[in-house]
Amino acid sequence: MSESEKEITITQMEKSGRAQSNDFVAVEEPMEIRIVFGPPERRRSKSLSITMRTPGHDFELATGFLFTEGIIRSQSEIRGIEHCGPTVSGREKPNIVRVDLDERVEIDMLKLQRHFYATSSCGICGKASLAALNQLQLPQIDSKWQLSRQAVFGLPEKLRQKQSLFESTGGIHAAGLFDSDSNLICLREDVGRHNALDKLVGQLLINDRLQRQDTVLVVSGRASFELLQKALTASIPIFVAVGAPSSLAVELAEQFRMTLIGFTSAYRFNVYSHPFRII
Amino acid sequence: MSESEKEITITQMEKSGRAQSNDFVAVEEPMEIRIVFGPPERRRSKSLSITMRTPGHDFELATGFLFTEGIIRSQSEIRGIEHCGPTVSGREKPNIVRVDLDERVEIDMLKLQRHFYATSSCGICGKASLAALNQLQLPQIDSKWQLSRQAVFGLPEKLRQKQSLFESTGGIHAAGLFDSDSNLICLREDVGRHNALDKLVGQLLINDRLQRQDTVLVVSGRASFELLQKALTASIPIFVAVGAPSSLAVELAEQFRMTLIGFTSAYRFNVYSHPFRII
Repeated sequence: MSESEKEITITQMEKSGRAQSNDFVAVEEPMEIRIVFGPPERRRSKSLSITMRTPGHDFELATGFLFTEGIIRSQSEIRGIEHCGPTVSGREKPNIVRVDLDERVEIDMLKLQRHFYATSSCGICGKASLAALNQLQLPQIDSKWQLSRQAVFGLPEKLRQKQSLFESTGGIHAAGLFDSDSNLICLREDVGRHNALDKLVGQLLINDRLQRQDTVLVVSGRASFELLQKALTASIPIFVAVGAPSSLAVELAEQFRMTLIGFTSAYRFNVYSHPFRII
Repeated sequence: MSESEKEITITQMEKSGRAQSNDFVAVEEPMEIRIVFGPPERRRSKSLSITMRTPGHDFELATGFLFTEGIIRSQSEIRGIEHCGPTVSGREKPNIVRVDLDERVEIDMLKLQRHFYATSSCGICGKASLAALNQLQLPQIDSKWQLSRQAVFGLPEKLRQKQSLFESTGGIHAAGLFDSDSNLICLREDVGRHNALDKLVGQLLINDRLQRQDTVLVVSGRASFELLQKALTASIPIFVAVGAPSSLAVELAEQFRMTLIGFTSAYRFNVYSHPFRII
């Protein structure tokens, strides 16, 4: 059993009666991301975020988070990364990840505050938020790559087949990146859907496989503002959600030239923006 | 069309071809909660949170949030509540809600920080977090009320039938409270599942219907730590999720004597804690 799932005893109820049995649930635990930054004579440490996540791939999660939130622009800006702090009983690793940033990385506390305000929290209204995003210089997606309709129909099932934690626990989000031949490049799972995407982006960044222009992202749930924003940071041209998109997700995709697809099944799907990429 | 949904043009793709059509998406927009507090001579204002939510029932959301996060203990601690700030084009109301708190409400900034750390963010590890929750004096659920297995089988369908926004947009969370005869007391929908629950709790609090000991909460998605914690604050004895629970949700329910049910369908469900309430 991995650190990502936990075996527990449950009472199963059916029309015909009840029975005790064992089952697996996805582990949910907080993780804190701390950064160490500044010139040698003035190195400082700061706690940046605490997120409820499924343990496993912690370094990828921290790396991906720093990238999709605009703190770092490449993997080379990370000098070192390690678990620190006290170990929780029964767990192999502590729940704090400390990221040692290159001294050239400039952290403007005020800007950081404004940034988190403008992204995770995203401002006081949709319009203000979109304006803030423009200021963040998110890239317009310029990929001209196209994907066949037939390929899209097959993606949710391909994602599902590889979801090992979903298989055992039945309750976990997934984010998977596929190449132009619909082959899976990488998949990550987490109780938080933004974490699944951050882990995926972190993995790609660490292995220098992020800046391809012919990839399609598939997420197991809905498409929210936050997920779209993270996918934009990673310049992914096609975003496929198994579930529904929100109004703000559609607006973001429209504005930054991302192709947004929702309600994707083996038989049909909806394209919410820039359908030219689907042939 | 309500302020909670938006009509857009989409491209529908099927095996047989493509077509333009109109569809509805759930509106997602940020809302800021500001509190005004302190004695008459030193009234102060503070921005407490910004959450991505579906517009509608904003005052309930603010009231429920303040209650489930432990800032207020009853509706009587709110003197007034209003929308403020600039109006976004195309929207009737601004996205800031200002809550005027009774001067007796003491806001300890340090404690508030620790509190948000210990709840929304919930500490550095599961154990530390549970310890922090003990300090928050969440109530142990002492309700001896029992519900029949047969009644539980019927709850997800009853929730679904009343989900008007899900009906039109296909992508929104719901939280509904039912009484001992499985009659719906109140239902709220939102793109964020914690918001749906906060709106529900706020509605009950405003109408003085919260402190009943014979109610069952039904949520459309999974059971996370955050949802369990909010339901505990509202002293709800039975928590029914259509989806899966996380490890920390199960631990919380176990510790605070809440009956936690997951994977609920018309034919079967799992009980994760205190099955004595299901007969």
